[in-house]
Amino acid sequence: MPQKNDSSPEQLNIALFSPSGAVQEAARIRMAAKLLTQAGCTVKIDQSAALKRMRFAGTDEERIGAFNRIAEDKNVQVALATRGGYGLSRLLDQLDYKKLAASGKKWVGMSDFTAFSLAMLAKIGPSKEAITYSGPQATAQLASAEFDEVTLNCFLETMRGQLEAVGFKTDSSHVDGLDVKGILWGGNLAMLTSLLGTAYLPKIKGGILFLEDVGEHPYRIERMLLQLLYAGVLQAQKAILLGHFTAFKLTPNDRGYKLKTVIDYIRAHCKVPILTGLPAGHVPTVLTLPIGQKTQLLVEGRNAFLVF
Amino acid sequence: MPQKNDSSPEQLNIALFSPSGAVQEAARIRMAAKLLTQAGCTVKIDQSAALKRMRFAGTDEERIGAFNRIAEDKNVQVALATRGGYGLSRLLDQLDYKKLAASGKKWVGMSDFTAFSLAMLAKIGPSKEAITYSGPQATAQLASAEFDEVTLNCFLETMRGQLEAVGFKTDSSHVDGLDVKGILWGGNLAMLTSLLGTAYLPKIKGGILFLEDVGEHPYRIERMLLQLLYAGVLQAQKAILLGHFTAFKLTPNDRGYKLKTVIDYIRAHCKVPILTGLPAGHVPTVLTLPIGQKTQLLVEGRNAFLVF
Repeated sequence: MPQKNDSSPEQLNIALFSPSGAVQEAARIRMAAKLLTQAGCTVKIDQSAALKRMRFAGTDEERIGAFNRIAEDKNVQVALATRGGYGLSRLLDQLDYKKLAASGKKWVGMSDFTAFSLAMLAKIGPSKEAITYSGPQATAQLASAEFDEVTLNCFLETMRGQLEAVGFKTDSSHVDGLDVKGILWGGNLAMLTSLLGTAYLPKIKGGILFLEDVGEHPYRIERMLLQLLYAGVLQAQKAILLGHFTAFKLTPNDRGYKLKTVIDYIRAHCKVPILTGLPAGHVPTVLTLPIGQKTQLLVEGRNAFLVF
Repeated sequence: MPQKNDSSPEQLNIALFSPSGAVQEAARIRMAAKLLTQAGCTVKIDQSAALKRMRFAGTDEERIGAFNRIAEDKNVQVALATRGGYGLSRLLDQLDYKKLAASGKKWVGMSDFTAFSLAMLAKIGPSKEAITYSGPQATAQLASAEFDEVTLNCFLETMRGQLEAVGFKTDSSHVDGLDVKGILWGGNLAMLTSLLGTAYLPKIKGGILFLEDVGEHPYRIERMLLQLLYAGVLQAQKAILLGHFTAFKLTPNDRGYKLKTVIDYIRAHCKVPILTGLPAGHVPTVLTLPIGQKTQLLVEGRNAFLVF
């Protein structure tokens, strides 16, 4: 028995499910299940987790069915998404948020999953029941050649309710001494932006907003951030935390325009402190962050802390 | 003197300007000027049209300066954008819409230009002054190896106020007999969607909405259309006209998911008639369409007509 389980005796029952894109290699789901089992969890693979319907992990009805099945399963505490992709946008007006919130399950995912997390927060309103988690994807960060144990440990501690604070290095020296409290929310920038103008974007004032994205050229990141700025979302927050923005290609025609250009531009047009360096995004090392939870952000030098 | 100028004696004075991305080959601007001159127009190339500042055709200030310079130029009737790209999002809160509308110029462009056209309509409100045009880009549709004279003729006739109606073939047989009137508006789907939640998206009810895009995978097109649906925009229109959606790549993991899947899906979730086939988009043959003008849409069999 590994030592961390001695100090973490609580048994975790985890269901793996696929609310978005089809998992290309079902073996990766089994790999994730094995990893979690070895870490002391009991793992169930939802019956539709490996479905493939065009680019989706099942039809809309099958993916809604997975949500409901897990919500009704008394032996499950944690519902962990296998991956993102695209698919939750289709389900937003058909999910039974009240039922899913009242189920008491800890819903965990990222990327496309952001649409669900934010819709839950918008529909239920800030409350303990509405909290979902931005965390590892079973077939990406967990069943991965680049697996980082920090990701797993943070996930497990958060699921067990043992994580009181996390720290990370920020390269933003201008925010030394920052000390703010607010609702932690956010996730994937493209997904969050895709909810603007709809009833699925929570109206959070004075929050701590975190953002990440993958495969978006910096000009698209800028366009989305400007949309959030013009919509009044950025300015209404106490702080903005930027995770990783990865897998884009600059071209010769960018002539020096890059991600830093975007961050500098938004900082010049928005007075809210913007911190970089949050371990979130399409990278091996990610925190498990409670979306919808009142959180304190402290910065000492280049060390930032989130206290839950 | 070509015959079409005999029947179109009105002299057109056109300024070419670059409000968005940098033009990579300045020679293309001169090619477009030559083409328009040969068609009987007087053409002026704005002094900043060929600027390159990173990926932009000049700094924000330089591009705003081009708008104002043209607005103040008594010898110009038509302001034609050289190209799209990205850049207008940055200017939306800094443009003097009243001045630009009152200038009486015909502003023409597409793609990134959609942000300007829609912001103008939102800020000024539906009126003759607020009308701008979705039309050819000087260095794309005009100075192009794939140049189509239909594009030029439609542009010139519209600029001269001689175009009373346009027709196109639609592959949508279910709308035979449709006869609706409303404000024509729309443009590039990504740009229109990038205005949701902001003060720059006009609130058009009972309109005729047209959409096109380039380089967006069908799942992104679907996500944007769903956002417009959830925001109540699609359902508030009398008809939706789809132009061309081009330059995307399907992958084996799409497993048959394609543009038609998206159109069928949106049609199943939105009762508004959706017609395909509008000559608009990143293709050689495009209409010049008045954004903000009350327009009649008639469908007879597979022939659709827009009457201005």
